[in-house]
Amino acid sequence: TMEINWNTEEAEKGGYDHFMLKEIHEQPKAVKETVRGRVQKDSVDLEELSLTKEEISSFNKIDIVACGTAYHAGLIGKSLFESLARVPVEVSIASEFRYRDPLLSNNNLVIVISQSGETADTLAALRESQKRGAKVLAITNVVGSSVSREADEVIYTWAGPEIAVASTKAYVTQLVALSLLATYFAQTKKTITSERLDQLVTTINSLPEHVERIFEYEDEILDIAKKVSKYENAFFIGRSLDWAVAEEAALKLKEISYIHAEAYAAGELKHGTLALIVDNVPVISLATQPHVYEKTISNLQEVKARGAQCITVVNEDDTEINNESDQIIRIPNIDPLLSPILSVIPLQLLSYYAAVARGTDVDKPRNLAKSVTVE
Amino acid sequence: TMEINWNTEEAEKGGYDHFMLKEIHEQPKAVKETVRGRVQKDSVDLEELSLTKEEISSFNKIDIVACGTAYHAGLIGKSLFESLARVPVEVSIASEFRYRDPLLSNNNLVIVISQSGETADTLAALRESQKRGAKVLAITNVVGSSVSREADEVIYTWAGPEIAVASTKAYVTQLVALSLLATYFAQTKKTITSERLDQLVTTINSLPEHVERIFEYEDEILDIAKKVSKYENAFFIGRSLDWAVAEEAALKLKEISYIHAEAYAAGELKHGTLALIVDNVPVISLATQPHVYEKTISNLQEVKARGAQCITVVNEDDTEINNESDQIIRIPNIDPLLSPILSVIPLQLLSYYAAVARGTDVDKPRNLAKSVTVE
Repeated sequence: TMEINWNTEEAEKGGYDHFMLKEIHEQPKAVKETVRGRVQKDSVDLEELSLTKEEISSFNKIDIVACGTAYHAGLIGKSLFESLARVPVEVSIASEFRYRDPLLSNNNLVIVISQSGETADTLAALRESQKRGAKVLAITNVVGSSVSREADEVIYTWAGPEIAVASTKAYVTQLVALSLLATYFAQTKKTITSERLDQLVTTINSLPEHVERIFEYEDEILDIAKKVSKYENAFFIGRSLDWAVAEEAALKLKEISYIHAEAYAAGELKHGTLALIVDNVPVISLATQPHVYEKTISNLQEVKARGAQCITVVNEDDTEINNESDQIIRIPNIDPLLSPILSVIPLQLLSYYAAVARGTDVDKPRNLAKSVTVE
Repeated sequence: TMEINWNTEEAEKGGYDHFMLKEIHEQPKAVKETVRGRVQKDSVDLEELSLTKEEISSFNKIDIVACGTAYHAGLIGKSLFESLARVPVEVSIASEFRYRDPLLSNNNLVIVISQSGETADTLAALRESQKRGAKVLAITNVVGSSVSREADEVIYTWAGPEIAVASTKAYVTQLVALSLLATYFAQTKKTITSERLDQLVTTINSLPEHVERIFEYEDEILDIAKKVSKYENAFFIGRSLDWAVAEEAALKLKEISYIHAEAYAAGELKHGTLALIVDNVPVISLATQPHVYEKTISNLQEVKARGAQCITVVNEDDTEINNESDQIIRIPNIDPLLSPILSVIPLQLLSYYAAVARGTDVDKPRNLAKSVTVE
């Protein structure tokens, strides 16, 4: 039996032109709901988990398995777990993982991520992992879904119903769930100091207000989107966590605007894609990560020198960028490890407004379904 | 001091219009040279390695680190090592790996791959790995290169000088080197039966003649390339090893023809990219892997139903494909684990002839350099 906690009112557009725009704007609330009850004054508390401290310490590898947007959330998850909990993580596309004869044991934790909890390949990966002795933890948005019923452990994202085919609030709440989980593992394994834990908890608590503040820049993003909408190709580049967000941003633009958008690790440009950079091609860079900032700016200068139209997402306090980029999108300064939760949002808006300018069917892009329940 | 074993004659075009075409045709010889002396009657013998049997068995993880085309070789390497030597492998882009605070220990083997042996990010990753206690094995084409001098172990690819910016014979010999190495690890660890080892050794020995046979189809590939050359976008799809080859094939087409080519794990199409498939867009599928063949054909049918122009690379004995694909490219049947060494070659030719049809500067594509010796 499935429990349905959503009402019809929540499934309406509430004054927005499209479900997608409504769902983008629901993100402060979705983040708040996903954090609620899971953060104490100075620690993370995931009481829905039955994993013992010993089990958490015993995992010598985490596999994150998902499809599409949820896979992109997994890429961020890798950095979170490796950086905070010091456990190696491999992120796999579910349709690849299940056919690959994966090396798994009972020292592996497999985390599957699926908004609907019904994604066929993800569900098959879950079953294959359990058969090979691994414990499976699911991150899903739907209570009572197949994935939630079959997994050994479940963390729900409380995003509420997501109607638009292009995922926005589900993705962002997946990032929040992964942040909570990685912090919880780090706290349990004592791989971070109590001072660092305090910082993280404080940042997680402040996420809803930071997300809300991004909408102050919505008009500027609309203007940039109109420009981008005139081109048939676009590139997204970044390093480290910015690269993972670039992958998601490119998918978003591609699926609803039908612009051929592609993302790259910025350092890979010189190894081939730079050949595609010609006059006025939009190149959207993300440069929110201090430890790779200068390297990213150097890649940005390379594409600019080839005539690209440069749009860059940076932290609010960045002054260096003014001389480098044609257009600038700013996000509130927060802990770099958590800034993907913010940096993706202006790029969701960019995709949305570019698609609207191109007159596509934003909520139901051609050829795509909301949940991929067949292989 | 650097040893240079190449003469000027070898560096000439030898009757071909471009170095790239010459180098594509040199692949039977390059493969033969790379195998020579490393295969005995029923085993692989890598006497250049000083790794002991105990060391080989002690590695609990392999990291493969590289850029561009060499990174794509690494993706194939992952499957080879995991399948044959049952050791988990993570493949990383060098420009990402070096800035990521990688979790490494002296139970890690790091394999770096670089044609020139001078790739800046790869060299930095090598140094970072050694600093963290890992042993580094290099696969490179240049004797005396920085990478070859600093690595703990070196396996040379004997491709001879590669002049064209777009790598062909260096990539294929990297695949051969990885096949030899993975088989050697498996043989040392006894993770494969002696019967399986025999099969692999026999297949490796037969590679040069199989590579040679692909050129029988060169005229057909030229015709297909002319058709592809008329479009500004193209997609490459495949599953498992075919996906890894798709990534390399897309890079090849992109860098020399400037067609915006992109590769996907075929199972990911439904999660977004299917929105870009419209009438006549060329979709090049690879379907050489028996264990995922039916799933790939099902993805091919999806893109065909959306009007894509389907070109498919299959094994010679495939009869099912005749009803499914508009154009068919065949490769000799060999062990599926080694078929990437063959399947990439018609796609190198496809890229080459598409670029020639478009009139680009094939050997020196815009914006790119042969060796990326700066970051």
